[in-house]
Amino acid sequence: MEWISHSNILIVGLGLMGGSYARALRRLGFHVMALDRDPDTIEYARAEGLVDRGYTEPREEIIRDADAIIFALYPGVLKEWIRQYQAWVKPGTMLTDVTGVKTCVVYDVQAMLRPDVEFIAAHPMAGREVYGVRNSDDRIFRDANYIVVPTERNTEAGIAWCESLGRLLGFRRISRLTPEEHDEMIGFVSQLTHCIAVSLMTCSDNTHLVDYTGDSFRDLTRIARINDAMWSELFMMNQKPLLRQMDAFLEELTAFREMLAKGDTEGMREKMRLSTARRAMFDRK
Amino acid sequence: MEWISHSNILIVGLGLMGGSYARALRRLGFHVMALDRDPDTIEYARAEGLVDRGYTEPREEIIRDADAIIFALYPGVLKEWIRQYQAWVKPGTMLTDVTGVKTCVVYDVQAMLRPDVEFIAAHPMAGREVYGVRNSDDRIFRDANYIVVPTERNTEAGIAWCESLGRLLGFRRISRLTPEEHDEMIGFVSQLTHCIAVSLMTCSDNTHLVDYTGDSFRDLTRIARINDAMWSELFMMNQKPLLRQMDAFLEELTAFREMLAKGDTEGMREKMRLSTARRAMFDRK
Repeated sequence: MEWISHSNILIVGLGLMGGSYARALRRLGFHVMALDRDPDTIEYARAEGLVDRGYTEPREEIIRDADAIIFALYPGVLKEWIRQYQAWVKPGTMLTDVTGVKTCVVYDVQAMLRPDVEFIAAHPMAGREVYGVRNSDDRIFRDANYIVVPTERNTEAGIAWCESLGRLLGFRRISRLTPEEHDEMIGFVSQLTHCIAVSLMTCSDNTHLVDYTGDSFRDLTRIARINDAMWSELFMMNQKPLLRQMDAFLEELTAFREMLAKGDTEGMREKMRLSTARRAMFDRK
Repeated sequence: MEWISHSNILIVGLGLMGGSYARALRRLGFHVMALDRDPDTIEYARAEGLVDRGYTEPREEIIRDADAIIFALYPGVLKEWIRQYQAWVKPGTMLTDVTGVKTCVVYDVQAMLRPDVEFIAAHPMAGREVYGVRNSDDRIFRDANYIVVPTERNTEAGIAWCESLGRLLGFRRISRLTPEEHDEMIGFVSQLTHCIAVSLMTCSDNTHLVDYTGDSFRDLTRIARINDAMWSELFMMNQKPLLRQMDAFLEELTAFREMLAKGDTEGMREKMRLSTARRAMFDRK
């Protein structure tokens, strides 16, 4: 499937991400359909013109109409949806997703999928600390990365289609990773940092310190406001890579603690110099 | 001493913080003198009009001229300076500092100090990730907290004088803490967060991930660019409170790790909900 204007795009799950996709795609001239179990969400999306058509229940005539389907669901729900409704998908339809973990999703989905449709996984690395279609906003894509996560089952045409979607949505950078590379990266860059921010907020009752916190503390804990249902599911679905990252971090912080306890100033300074040099590379980009 | 325009303020140590004080005080009409061992620094400060007079060596006639002295030195150097040069300080002179740790500084300084001058500790909670007089900028005070840290040896007049200085410099909020309260707070809000940021950068070679990092990771590690000489000294001078804070955090993150390893989703969600509720209080301010 090419990205032809007026073709029918079905978005399944109209939360913050699904809603943001809908806004971008409708503006580009696609015919956007949406499925979401919440009647309020569908009502809002219709009233605000985010979608051309919206439904609360999957029906054969809706699904058959789609030239492409974008899944913006919790990971567990995605597999179940494929199992139940793939029979209604039109041959040749392209499927993609926005799921934040890949290894435990993409292989299962591709294994159960009909051979005449293609599922190509993607991770739009964009978000906000708020949720739901009412907060959706496709400007969150502008400075963000879009990662296409192909496997051996994907065709070059499918991968190219998915990369085009990332460009159409306005992402700054499009790249490719294997599911395993993706999950290891996300375990460090996103999941470990969320675990740290949460633990920093919960390790002591610090609310009396609110008047003394500067930008450092606020920056470090901004992501401590977290959707507990979604993130606990993402953590569990990436359990092994995340445990590896947590263990590496715990070991490193414990070693730093030991240097402090022993008065090993030179050891601490060496760590600080390494940290400063590495962090400088992140500023250059 | 009152804050009378044209009175002589001596700033000892003209780095980022001393330079920022100089800019603010000179603009307010004070006669600003500076001492710094680095000839380049003094040259720059004179040429840019940051100070009225600048010197690289303490001399009796300079020190005797001061109505107030502000120490913007590394903590270890401050005590040594007092020991060596306090004989030249004019009776009735007010002394204050900008040191980021208090318990191990203020009691020693006050114990050795002549009875006819007063040292009142303060911590301007402002900063940048860059150093030196060339990066000094008194706009960093605008949204920042200024903490006055009195002991039983301080007079109400001295405390009021120091609070006025914070107001003159343009700080958003002036408060009082005991040295012990201050160090416990700073161990959590500032030092623990710096240890975490450093360990996050050093726990694995993550520089190949630079293309995949979003705002969360960048926010969390911004403070990983760190002046290793200054921070290692600050950590050592606040060793016990910082070790307590590190242990509380390590214990909490380890507990979270165990929940993940056991698949205790409800336990993780409970932590996330607590973290979300607490962090929301920080946004309200």
